[in-house]
Amino acid sequence: MSNTKNYKLAILGATGAVGQKILATLDSRDFPIKHIKLLSSPRSAGKEVKFKGETIIVEEATPESFEDVDIAFFSAGGSVSKQLAKEAVKRGAVVVDNTSAFRMDQDVPLVVPEVNASALKDHQGIIANPNCSTIQMVTALKPIKEKYGLKRVIVSTYQSVSGAGAQAVEELRKQSEAYLNGEEITPELLPVKGESNHYPIAFNALPQIDVFDENGYTFEEMKMINETRKILNNADLSVAATCVRVPFFTSHAESVYIEVEKDASVLDIQARLKEAPGIILKDNPATQDYPTPLDASGKPDVFVGRIRKDLDHEFGFHMWIVSDNLLKGAALNSVQIAESMIENDWL
Amino acid sequence: MSNTKNYKLAILGATGAVGQKILATLDSRDFPIKHIKLLSSPRSAGKEVKFKGETIIVEEATPESFEDVDIAFFSAGGSVSKQLAKEAVKRGAVVVDNTSAFRMDQDVPLVVPEVNASALKDHQGIIANPNCSTIQMVTALKPIKEKYGLKRVIVSTYQSVSGAGAQAVEELRKQSEAYLNGEEITPELLPVKGESNHYPIAFNALPQIDVFDENGYTFEEMKMINETRKILNNADLSVAATCVRVPFFTSHAESVYIEVEKDASVLDIQARLKEAPGIILKDNPATQDYPTPLDASGKPDVFVGRIRKDLDHEFGFHMWIVSDNLLKGAALNSVQIAESMIENDWL
Repeated sequence: MSNTKNYKLAILGATGAVGQKILATLDSRDFPIKHIKLLSSPRSAGKEVKFKGETIIVEEATPESFEDVDIAFFSAGGSVSKQLAKEAVKRGAVVVDNTSAFRMDQDVPLVVPEVNASALKDHQGIIANPNCSTIQMVTALKPIKEKYGLKRVIVSTYQSVSGAGAQAVEELRKQSEAYLNGEEITPELLPVKGESNHYPIAFNALPQIDVFDENGYTFEEMKMINETRKILNNADLSVAATCVRVPFFTSHAESVYIEVEKDASVLDIQARLKEAPGIILKDNPATQDYPTPLDASGKPDVFVGRIRKDLDHEFGFHMWIVSDNLLKGAALNSVQIAESMIENDWL
Repeated sequence: MSNTKNYKLAILGATGAVGQKILATLDSRDFPIKHIKLLSSPRSAGKEVKFKGETIIVEEATPESFEDVDIAFFSAGGSVSKQLAKEAVKRGAVVVDNTSAFRMDQDVPLVVPEVNASALKDHQGIIANPNCSTIQMVTALKPIKEKYGLKRVIVSTYQSVSGAGAQAVEELRKQSEAYLNGEEITPELLPVKGESNHYPIAFNALPQIDVFDENGYTFEEMKMINETRKILNNADLSVAATCVRVPFFTSHAESVYIEVEKDASVLDIQARLKEAPGIILKDNPATQDYPTPLDASGKPDVFVGRIRKDLDHEFGFHMWIVSDNLLKGAALNSVQIAESMIENDWL
């Protein structure tokens, strides 16, 4: 950090999976903190959370909680964000929102710092953190687009249960144990909390993440499509997504087909990704080198491998993109947004 | 069966996962059997196998084993097929080969009976059963191609460990138990037996099935590409595949993008699949109806769901195809090939 000022922070949803990762990320990256306030729903208020050796008591979030806060990280669900984000902004805080509440609002920047940090400049108090599966994909596609253009994206995802929250992680664990012991499984949560039907996730795959839109796509798929266009600043980009929940605990993997606009080789694309920020190229078939979700878990980077030319389409490439959905896909990207605003004096 | 003759069968690889499923399928479909001979490598010879209440002793396979055999099902690996298939044919048997040994040979029909049974007519003794991930895809694509044409296919697979044999099933089970108990995992088999590196499959995904070709694709991916073109009898069809091993025990799932040649709606495609043989349409977002690997396991059909139009490409569609890789993907298709030859008097 070039700036030596310290900041007053608030974390809303501090006891959740992403809130906890935000705390760990602030700590590991030595974020310049003057004071930190942990906020939650009434249900979690009163809980104690350790941070840098101190015990902080979680407080119930109210509009007044955001008085005298510089930066507020929101990760307590879309409805809470809708209720409190504008109240926080009114009181002078900048909100980095990890929910989908404002992502497609025209006056809300949707930012992955490696991709479109400059969009932060014109913020009006709320900055949206994109969907986890979108973040890792655009981080890998941006450097390719910059040099070779980008016409088309078709992605199929392999998404871990942690994207559906701590209860889904517990559900995968319990179901897996039951299945291995030959016991009956009673699915209670996945694919979507609150939907009528629940299906087993242990040793299975569910081609539904979030509820269905009228057009037959899920909301998760439409998020990937719309957010990718917004972040890459190309409303005409052809993007298609099939989002699938699979039985891993952490990290999302993506099988991605792209069409670029200029002649490029696999070596060109690899070279571009090797020099790009936030990306680790892991791509050598001769040594069986490619990223896997288990490898990527707990790491801050976006890993890319299996890059190869389409056998029929001159400008077509396939690749395999993997990242920790709670880190770069959520907590880390949120903290990087705040860092970028501080560095550029855009707070 | 219209024919009332009974047949002398041999099963090579009778103690393996596919061999066992062939036996079960012959039984459940009341295949007209006069006599059945179970064959294997020297290692498994002498084992006892139950079939229709009788105990059959497995014999070591030699060229002479195929004297007086009408139909021989081969599923003991490619090198065994290369060694013995022609010996069997020389002795008058018709070989239905479940390995990749002869699939791309010009004079060997590669057959999914619902798709291209007529190719069986000109056989010269060996008929190849396609790769599991290819079979389920072409079964779903054929009825669409027939009515609307087919220009392009891009598939990402979610393939179960049973496709890598009984040892891989055991590896997933053991690793899953160890992981859940917080114990160390030592991967020993997957992604590919005999390769230098092994990676955990429990709660993970491995973007490598079979070894790598020089072009950066795996053999599994090249099988899907080449076999799909051969079975659909269209050498110019644009096919791309990314094949991924995931932690399920049984059934393969596929996220498939296609481009047809004529205007069609989702309802048109659904109607076509509903009337097509071997397919069950499970496709209603309103009731969260779509196929999953656990649901498909143990069933003979190819299940299709999540059919939707691409949002940008007029003739583009996405769909989700699931089937039991040991049944329609292997044993059942082999038995159906034999049935089709009997029915048409092509033996």
